[in-house]
Amino acid sequence: MPLLDEDYLFPADPQARLVARKLYEQIRGLPLISPHGHTQAQWFADDEAFPDPAKLLVIPDHYIFRMLVSQGIKMEDLGVPSVDGSPVETDSRKIWQIFADNYYLFAGTPTRLWLDHSFQHIFGIDEPLNSDSAGRYFDHIAQCLEQEEFRPRALYEKFNLEVISTTEDPLDELKYHRQIRESDWNGRVISAYRPDMVVDPDYDGFAEKLVALGELSDCDTMSWQGYLDAHRQRRAYFISLGATSTDHGHPSARTADLNDGEAERLFHDVVSGKANEEQRDLFRAQMLTEMAKMSIEDGLVMQLHPGSWRNHSRSVHKRFGRDKGFDIPTATDYVSDLKPLLDAVGHSPQLSLILFTLDESAYSRELAPLAGAYPALKLGPAWWFFDSAEGMKRYRELTTETAGFYNTVGFNDDTRAFPSIPARHDVARRVDCAYLAGLVTTHQLHMEEAEELAAELAYGLAKKAYKL
Amino acid sequence: MPLLDEDYLFPADPQARLVARKLYEQIRGLPLISPHGHTQAQWFADDEAFPDPAKLLVIPDHYIFRMLVSQGIKMEDLGVPSVDGSPVETDSRKIWQIFADNYYLFAGTPTRLWLDHSFQHIFGIDEPLNSDSAGRYFDHIAQCLEQEEFRPRALYEKFNLEVISTTEDPLDELKYHRQIRESDWNGRVISAYRPDMVVDPDYDGFAEKLVALGELSDCDTMSWQGYLDAHRQRRAYFISLGATSTDHGHPSARTADLNDGEAERLFHDVVSGKANEEQRDLFRAQMLTEMAKMSIEDGLVMQLHPGSWRNHSRSVHKRFGRDKGFDIPTATDYVSDLKPLLDAVGHSPQLSLILFTLDESAYSRELAPLAGAYPALKLGPAWWFFDSAEGMKRYRELTTETAGFYNTVGFNDDTRAFPSIPARHDVARRVDCAYLAGLVTTHQLHMEEAEELAAELAYGLAKKAYKL
Amino acid sequence: MPLLDEDYLFPADPQARLVARKLYEQIRGLPLISPHGHTQAQWFADDEAFPDPAKLLVIPDHYIFRMLVSQGIKMEDLGVPSVDGSPVETDSRKIWQIFADNYYLFAGTPTRLWLDHSFQHIFGIDEPLNSDSAGRYFDHIAQCLEQEEFRPRALYEKFNLEVISTTEDPLDELKYHRQIRESDWNGRVISAYRPDMVVDPDYDGFAEKLVALGELSDCDTMSWQGYLDAHRQRRAYFISLGATSTDHGHPSARTADLNDGEAERLFHDVVSGKANEEQRDLFRAQMLTEMAKMSIEDGLVMQLHPGSWRNHSRSVHKRFGRDKGFDIPTATDYVSDLKPLLDAVGHSPQLSLILFTLDESAYSRELAPLAGAYPALKLGPAWWFFDSAEGMKRYRELTTETAGFYNTVGFNDDTRAFPSIPARHDVARRVDCAYLAGLVTTHQLHMEEAEELAAELAYGLAKKAYKL
Repeated sequence: MPLLDEDYLFPADPQARLVARKLYEQIRGLPLISPHGHTQAQWFADDEAFPDPAKLLVIPDHYIFRMLVSQGIKMEDLGVPSVDGSPVETDSRKIWQIFADNYYLFAGTPTRLWLDHSFQHIFGIDEPLNSDSAGRYFDHIAQCLEQEEFRPRALYEKFNLEVISTTEDPLDELKYHRQIRESDWNGRVISAYRPDMVVDPDYDGFAEKLVALGELSDCDTMSWQGYLDAHRQRRAYFISLGATSTDHGHPSARTADLNDGEAERLFHDVVSGKANEEQRDLFRAQMLTEMAKMSIEDGLVMQLHPGSWRNHSRSVHKRFGRDKGFDIPTATDYVSDLKPLLDAVGHSPQLSLILFTLDESAYSRELAPLAGAYPALKLGPAWWFFDSAEGMKRYRELTTETAGFYNTVGFNDDTRAFPSIPARHDVARRVDCAYLAGLVTTHQLHMEEAEELAAELAYGLAKKAYKL
Repeated sequence: MPLLDEDYLFPADPQARLVARKLYEQIRGLPLISPHGHTQAQWFADDEAFPDPAKLLVIPDHYIFRMLVSQGIKMEDLGVPSVDGSPVETDSRKIWQIFADNYYLFAGTPTRLWLDHSFQHIFGIDEPLNSDSAGRYFDHIAQCLEQEEFRPRALYEKFNLEVISTTEDPLDELKYHRQIRESDWNGRVISAYRPDMVVDPDYDGFAEKLVALGELSDCDTMSWQGYLDAHRQRRAYFISLGATSTDHGHPSARTADLNDGEAERLFHDVVSGKANEEQRDLFRAQMLTEMAKMSIEDGLVMQLHPGSWRNHSRSVHKRFGRDKGFDIPTATDYVSDLKPLLDAVGHSPQLSLILFTLDESAYSRELAPLAGAYPALKLGPAWWFFDSAEGMKRYRELTTETAGFYNTVGFNDDTRAFPSIPARHDVARRVDCAYLAGLVTTHQLHMEEAEELAAELAYGLAKKAYKL
Repeated sequence: MPLLDEDYLFPADPQARLVARKLYEQIRGLPLISPHGHTQAQWFADDEAFPDPAKLLVIPDHYIFRMLVSQGIKMEDLGVPSVDGSPVETDSRKIWQIFADNYYLFAGTPTRLWLDHSFQHIFGIDEPLNSDSAGRYFDHIAQCLEQEEFRPRALYEKFNLEVISTTEDPLDELKYHRQIRESDWNGRVISAYRPDMVVDPDYDGFAEKLVALGELSDCDTMSWQGYLDAHRQRRAYFISLGATSTDHGHPSARTADLNDGEAERLFHDVVSGKANEEQRDLFRAQMLTEMAKMSIEDGLVMQLHPGSWRNHSRSVHKRFGRDKGFDIPTATDYVSDLKPLLDAVGHSPQLSLILFTLDESAYSRELAPLAGAYPALKLGPAWWFFDSAEGMKRYRELTTETAGFYNTVGFNDDTRAFPSIPARHDVARRVDCAYLAGLVTTHQLHMEEAEELAAELAYGLAKKAYKL
């Protein structure tokens, strides 16, 4: 018996299931567009073999280790690298065994679907992962990873990727992206411009990073205009290597629209370290509007990922650093926060601002009404904790009636976990087909419309929204 | 093939569908009660033919044009009248073509169901609307509108309306309502008293409107008691022409219960223009409690529609005025906001305050618990962005278990779009039948109870709640 | 025809229903674990007959009387005891008749399912309750209650309870718990330590209660260390009689982590009555962290029930006292509120803090991400207004994908209404089986996994989480 049934995630009702299956059959072969994510360009540049199963699948995946930690397993026993020099487990086989012993914890989670999908479709495994099968799994996957066909470029092709975007900061010289471009490989690996570290005064090492940005861009980043020019220049550089988007990970969706003098004074207070908390937040807010204005000039699509309280656990942050599963969503107010930006540029036909949320209560109350009115706004897909079957279903239920399908932008896998990419897209495609099947079965859509929409949701909308 | 299947919106499960269909069959013939809406009394008074399809169906409907605008179409190209004198498209056929070209955008939205229902049941059309059929649609509907049987009164009867309420402000002399009463036509068109413009100090022209209110009522609206008396008098006038309700569209649900001296001082600060933002908000809050007290005296049912950030887009407001699809919901706190009013009059058997929300997170957290306890409170139906199949389903799922069915008040179409009224009621009736069918199929209700409830939800509750 | 069908609450889809039924068959016989509730230890100590039907089922149940009150029936006519000495109805038969006349109001609510389940399974009734059957119901139930087999201990056994926890405050001497222990009866009735009245400076009579705590514990409760010692001692006493948990009903989830000096100074301001509102709230916040630290020492599992605005109606509170159906939920922020406690002890393997909510928007946004990361946190079941079929379904849908099943703790009936306990557990078990059946039918879980999980959700998780 395969790990995942052919019909997984299709509706229980037989009639609706038939419709979902039919829709899915028509779109399952479409290439994958991955317009936002966190894979490493170096993988595709160097095309070296991935390390062992634990290093590939467990240690870097915060979805996995946070769940194990929540049940009392120690981060260090899972080999998560410490930043304070304290020792962590290095025996990958041991780490894998702990993971396998506790794999039952993922019942009902998307991680379980993604992993089973990868085990089955990438590694050809059909026995369930548990304490008993752990060793066989480890050996088999380890053997696979040594093969040519499991190298990053081969997998990119096997996955039927048409394009994949990584995310880099302005100080990144994108040397791996250049290397890929200059190689004879035809894969399309592009970057997205994520300037948080030189936009957020609270970012670790902000001051030094500003200096570095000045050096790299040959702009006077201690002056407001020079600082903006440095952004313009780095954006142009990213564009020259294929980038089509920027990405902004702010604590809130707050924007501002100060006049030039105010903005300049604020910048100087920020640079000189005199800015208080409110001013630093205002600076982040102002910079979103500045970025939107640059997008109008250079055409980069803008993405806003607000509302995560990063590194919520002080001790985990101190011992293990960022991105360790302790980023917790908070309530987000888009309506007042976005107003300054929207009043400034919300009707510009050149701007496309894609909004994400970790606060589902905003979908129907704020996000769908905003995106269903402002031409500059689009809704990003269900994000992070909501990149899941129920999460995506609620996303459609909560947004479609007000914003329709065409103010959404298809799927983002947004992942560091390269092997999970086909699984994530497959889950999204199935959930969307199931949703459309529900509309067909209750006679809210005709079948031909559903077929067209299925292709748009799986492929077309992402391609258009991200100008790919 | 008809545009809408006979079974649209019924559950996919065959057993549940049978039950829904049976329930629906029993109530589909019940007259429509339309206790809250924004049609024009003049239509029924003058009974003149409606203008062409674009002027009837597209230009006045903010559900439609905001969606088109969100996809980059210009408001002026849709013929939406400007308030700043800038020219807009006047060729109705051109406007209709743009609308038809983009009709696919409404897939999955209630607008699509309402329109298809109207096309099919009012105008007898069975081909889908698209670029190709646009002209035929225009011609056919235009021809219909010239016929006697498509005049407002004829449609009122065709729609099986038992009563329809419009909404007017205190300065309105209700001459069309009087004209209808004095005519030989038997339709029941009543008004609802919506005093926002003389209650909200931030309303455009508040000061002049207060003067006008004084003249109309012959009360000294510069004194607190005179101002309250003016309200009493205008309410009595509305009642004399059939009104049974008031309606209040406030930014929040905030209420206050000041003593007489405080209220009087606040009023004077407001009238003299000295009141700051907080005081102006407090005045709105106090006036809700004053209105509740008047309702206890004169029996008008009170409706509160809070939580919309009106005219969110500065530029749209400036160029096109109010009600142009850029009203965006905000989070609303009913629990602390309503407490002053509830402590004052929440247990009065003479008061009936119907609460609406644009913040669904309040349904189960605040509104159902409040309405499931306070005798003065009832829950209005799913409103505006939630006047939709999923919206109404969530409304029932989120409120019934705590507040039951009998603390709800049936359906409101709340629309400016007269031809959509049968469609809106039909959607509501089907969704409620589907919900009841779910309870029957999972043995939470007996069939006879569901039959009784279906009739209450479709007809009985609205009639009782609004004293019609 | 029985009041409740054998398949009630199972999915409509026949395939999913078969799966749900099969899962349910395997767990329906498991004993009931009731780890949190509000029954009276005295019932089991004295084992006297319950009084008449109205006194047993109507008068003490705020779910019932608040619904009747919301429809205009007077609290006094339902026999709810007043605290201001005003007379209330004492004729139980009259009260029962009003209840029966209005039983239709509960259609679609969990109260209806609980009552029908009790009528059918405890009292063997199969005709529906209504005006006509009211008298027969009253007579039949009254006769039953006189029988030996309807005494508290007999019902405990009939209900297949394995353990039941009551809730007492630190001043309670637990004499009935002792009496039960010393009796020859084998039922397990334990207490939970609920210190709100000596932790919350706003509690009625806080100052006197502090004095009483000092006397009872022989500690100097006017000093910070003495006060903490008094808690330690009372906790130890509760533990000696079987308690395994504490319970905390705070207005918010706010915690604090002051240093010793700050905490001591705050305590003195609180004790001396000088503390302002913010300080009193800070004291409650600090005490949650103190309680967590004591839990690390003595092993008591900690429960936090925040977010209820108690006694929202001033007049009901004044005339009828606490717990009269006018406790209204408010929005709750767990992410910033819990941070001080979590930074202090959130990674302690000795701590288990079970979180409840009345704000469903926090499930997926805050609670599942927190519980899916911090080892000290677990999610309590759907609580109070959400102890219902839809409420529990949403709970699973909103938490499972992020926190899994194993960060949840099974079911709590949390009730004063002893006869409803089997019904409440039965509803929870059926809803969980239906949810699992959905996952099986859509191939997200294998059947064997679902079988294991069904038993965990019905029995295993509660036993482990509460150390029973």
